[in-house]
Amino acid sequence: MRVSKYLLSTQKETPANAEVVSHQLMLRAGMIRRNASGLYSWLPSGLRVLRKVEAIVREEMNNAGAVEILMPMVQPADLWVETGRWDKFGPELLRFQDRHNRDFVLGPTHEEVITDIIRKEVSSYKQLPLNLYQIQTKFRDEVRPRFGVMRSREFLMKDAYSFHLDQQTMDDTYQAMYTAYSNILGRMGLAFRPVLADTGSIGGSMSHEFHVLANSGEDLIAYSTESDYAANIEKAEAPMPTEPRGAATMEMSVIDTPNAKTIEELVEQHGIAIEKTIKTIIVKGASEEVPLVAVIVRGDHELNEVKVEKLDAVLAPFEMAGEAEIRDALGAGPGSLGPVGMTIPVYVDHSVNVMSDFAAGANQDGKHYVGINWERDLPQAEVADLRNVIEGEPSPCGKGTIGLLRGIEVGHIFQLGTNYSKAMGASVLDENGKAQTLLMGCYGVGVSRIVAAAIEQNHDDRGIIWPDAIAPFKVGILPMNMHKSHRIKDMAEKLYSDLNDAGIEVLFDDRKERPGVMFADMELIGLPHVIVIGERNIDNGVFEYKNRRTGEKQEIPFEEIVDFIKSAK
Amino acid sequence: MRVSKYLLSTQKETPANAEVVSHQLMLRAGMIRRNASGLYSWLPSGLRVLRKVEAIVREEMNNAGAVEILMPMVQPADLWVETGRWDKFGPELLRFQDRHNRDFVLGPTHEEVITDIIRKEVSSYKQLPLNLYQIQTKFRDEVRPRFGVMRSREFLMKDAYSFHLDQQTMDDTYQAMYTAYSNILGRMGLAFRPVLADTGSIGGSMSHEFHVLANSGEDLIAYSTESDYAANIEKAEAPMPTEPRGAATMEMSVIDTPNAKTIEELVEQHGIAIEKTIKTIIVKGASEEVPLVAVIVRGDHELNEVKVEKLDAVLAPFEMAGEAEIRDALGAGPGSLGPVGMTIPVYVDHSVNVMSDFAAGANQDGKHYVGINWERDLPQAEVADLRNVIEGEPSPCGKGTIGLLRGIEVGHIFQLGTNYSKAMGASVLDENGKAQTLLMGCYGVGVSRIVAAAIEQNHDDRGIIWPDAIAPFKVGILPMNMHKSHRIKDMAEKLYSDLNDAGIEVLFDDRKERPGVMFADMELIGLPHVIVIGERNIDNGVFEYKNRRTGEKQEIPFEEIVDFIKSAK
Repeated sequence: MRVSKYLLSTQKETPANAEVVSHQLMLRAGMIRRNASGLYSWLPSGLRVLRKVEAIVREEMNNAGAVEILMPMVQPADLWVETGRWDKFGPELLRFQDRHNRDFVLGPTHEEVITDIIRKEVSSYKQLPLNLYQIQTKFRDEVRPRFGVMRSREFLMKDAYSFHLDQQTMDDTYQAMYTAYSNILGRMGLAFRPVLADTGSIGGSMSHEFHVLANSGEDLIAYSTESDYAANIEKAEAPMPTEPRGAATMEMSVIDTPNAKTIEELVEQHGIAIEKTIKTIIVKGASEEVPLVAVIVRGDHELNEVKVEKLDAVLAPFEMAGEAEIRDALGAGPGSLGPVGMTIPVYVDHSVNVMSDFAAGANQDGKHYVGINWERDLPQAEVADLRNVIEGEPSPCGKGTIGLLRGIEVGHIFQLGTNYSKAMGASVLDENGKAQTLLMGCYGVGVSRIVAAAIEQNHDDRGIIWPDAIAPFKVGILPMNMHKSHRIKDMAEKLYSDLNDAGIEVLFDDRKERPGVMFADMELIGLPHVIVIGERNIDNGVFEYKNRRTGEKQEIPFEEIVDFIKSAK
Repeated sequence: MRVSKYLLSTQKETPANAEVVSHQLMLRAGMIRRNASGLYSWLPSGLRVLRKVEAIVREEMNNAGAVEILMPMVQPADLWVETGRWDKFGPELLRFQDRHNRDFVLGPTHEEVITDIIRKEVSSYKQLPLNLYQIQTKFRDEVRPRFGVMRSREFLMKDAYSFHLDQQTMDDTYQAMYTAYSNILGRMGLAFRPVLADTGSIGGSMSHEFHVLANSGEDLIAYSTESDYAANIEKAEAPMPTEPRGAATMEMSVIDTPNAKTIEELVEQHGIAIEKTIKTIIVKGASEEVPLVAVIVRGDHELNEVKVEKLDAVLAPFEMAGEAEIRDALGAGPGSLGPVGMTIPVYVDHSVNVMSDFAAGANQDGKHYVGINWERDLPQAEVADLRNVIEGEPSPCGKGTIGLLRGIEVGHIFQLGTNYSKAMGASVLDENGKAQTLLMGCYGVGVSRIVAAAIEQNHDDRGIIWPDAIAPFKVGILPMNMHKSHRIKDMAEKLYSDLNDAGIEVLFDDRKERPGVMFADMELIGLPHVIVIGERNIDNGVFEYKNRRTGEKQEIPFEEIVDFIKSAK
């Protein structure tokens, strides 16, 4: 491809409103352009990467025995009514009416449509197991789209759905998808981790996320320093306390804490050890009878919202109570709450249950209790794992300690059980002629998100550093002042033609630009390999080669260049 | 691919509600399934064909120097307001609001979005010409979706848009697209015609349609029997009358025609030659001052709506007046109208202008005039080409006569001039630093429609007959009673593996089905080449080969089969 016939559209300036580096670089490198909030066009360089990611995903899905189909983006509402998601799904589900005032949605996912197809097309156990996938545009009406294509409203996704009569083939397909996802990310040259995940609102029994590792990742991954164990921090089990509850040594008393609204202020102003403090958080309850629930973790621990919303008494998805609501029910503000005299159900983390002589709000503004002891000053509370794990703690797998890594979730595999097939009546006749409800798995890859995640992991201050497998072009030709030199122009044209003939994807910068501009653009768009041609090179019979990742330069004789680039990594 | 791991989903019965043969066969062959009115899922066999069509389109677009991008399906309304199409486009444009009550559309086409990108990204003549394309899902909220994917609401389209500073490069790109489209359809093995077309509501100066020829086609193509001339009948010029207007020989008189509401009834009941009758049609006018216009063609001619709507006085798009409206304005019903004493503007076809002694309605129910003569009985009317051409007439190109063919429009190329670029302010600086409004071309291919059109052209009463280039698989293996014979099973497995190793796409029917069922399925889904394996074949060391198109059978020695299939056409 010649730059003169291409839409390169690079930008020198870092665009305002682009918060993360992948978004900034995708805009600067001319990969995407914003059309409206959360809606992007993929310009040529961006689309080339997107299509490579798509092709690798497709190949690995086919290798794993999945069969490709394509479902419509616009879906009839009645299917969503059948599964109950028409009501349950939030405003991310874009609902609209067609010209005949019939209800439709723009599909954020396709469980309903595929289950409808399967219940109509598959009637016998002989047709199973079946794993169908599509690579298709999705829409989620995010309240605040951001980070470019990392969290856009319209995005490209690979979604697969498998159907089974027995747990064995369900497990086999799940494992095949686990392997396929590992192959996909591995082939793209990305550092990644599969991690145990929470099944969340989609439901089901078993789930792994695939994370591209990057310091800027939104997700925290807890892993074992000495085993393969890795889990999203949402899911990672905190270790049980090894010490029993300490004996009471203090009397409980009230202290005035007019300026202590946070744990940090309490610790600082009143000289209380943070391990002797607790945080009391009020969340919405699951029923009208129990509108509010108190959940408590140690002052130095972080509440884990996903663990909390798993409590039967708590509303899912997790929602904090508002200040007015709290005052109304408990007579004090959020900074002065505690379990002593609490009138709503109380759940405490395991580590809180073993505390003694501890401090907590007195449910009265500006007052705290100190020297609190369980069973003496207040009844025993319900105990559960409610906190995030901490780096250095023993790993729940039993080996090593917990390390933390940041990741960007780009894939997610689930065993859904019969959640959807039961609601929609998807069953087949088994070998004995008996109707059996299908087991179902679903498997998603964020195709457009992988592009952004790859950049978060692979860049420097000059621009993107593409892994070869997903680079928009493998190599760039950068002739210096070609428009003033026939020798350089001829050599560049010959090299361009030779590389094309060898089936190598080349971007040939044939613009009348200063070398500095061309170098900067080439580094920004991040082609893995660059060949520079100047007068000196022609005199010496060598090209100047530069590797984008290592920065290493090499002189390559004219006659060796095609083979060199072919095998360059 | 093994049928046991695939979703074949063939049906024996012709489905109700499928009016055209391609729709019937796509359902029966398990290519598509309906999810809602005008919304289809592509099952594996359908998607394989769709992806092949897509790949050929992409290759030829790239060969022609077009550069691929991808724009969002959801488009902000403000761009449509800028070009005025927010108001002008009918209810086919699906409008909706997002969660923040902002207006959006589901894109039926992308002129607005691409012009917005270009006006922001392209600032200099040096970046032009530029031809950008995408292959992407579109949505048109058709009032009555039908014919399966031939006129669905959601469909796959390739749309390209080119931008130019001068007519020369505009013409060059237009020609390159003309060639690319011919290559695309030619490579797919389809009989097709490029035809001159009307530019219609999209506007512009020059346009060709590409039609796949099929007896079931909705469009009529007028072509010359002795030149390359071909035009959509909407556009084909009718020849001017060669004879002058005849002299009057009759007096005008009124006759009672109480039962003659149509030309046919008039001719039959009153013995009037059809060439002496005229049809008067009342259509809506372009302005409030002229709400209705009368257009007149000879009794044996067909009114051409596209030609009519080109008249300045007539509303575009063409709309017939309702009966009540006609009665109100003219005092008679649609069956008794004529130009004598007509109180609204009258336009007549050239062939009407040369008529003499003719008959027409008297603008009074149950009455006609006979013996009407222009200028004597009524004033001279405005004259224009208002009718369809007729088979056997002289061709407007000057060579040969008109022949008529039926076609299915699968491609359309346009020169749009500055219609969109002016409305949206898309200009660049020319060599002299002066701002110039861009010329624009647009070029569409109905990717999903091609699949249906190919079937309309290529089928018999047993099913589809795929051209090799777009067949879901090149070859089918059909082992007879393999589950009872190890010899057959082993041979079939070996053949399957050999063909796969040779890079040939194979569908291996490994089901426990009766040979009759397997044969019928194979013919229905239309693979071009089929290899049958029975006990007799193994005894004789030959496979039985059958060509789907010709029906021809051949025995091919085991060792020659791979090469034979490789080169089979």
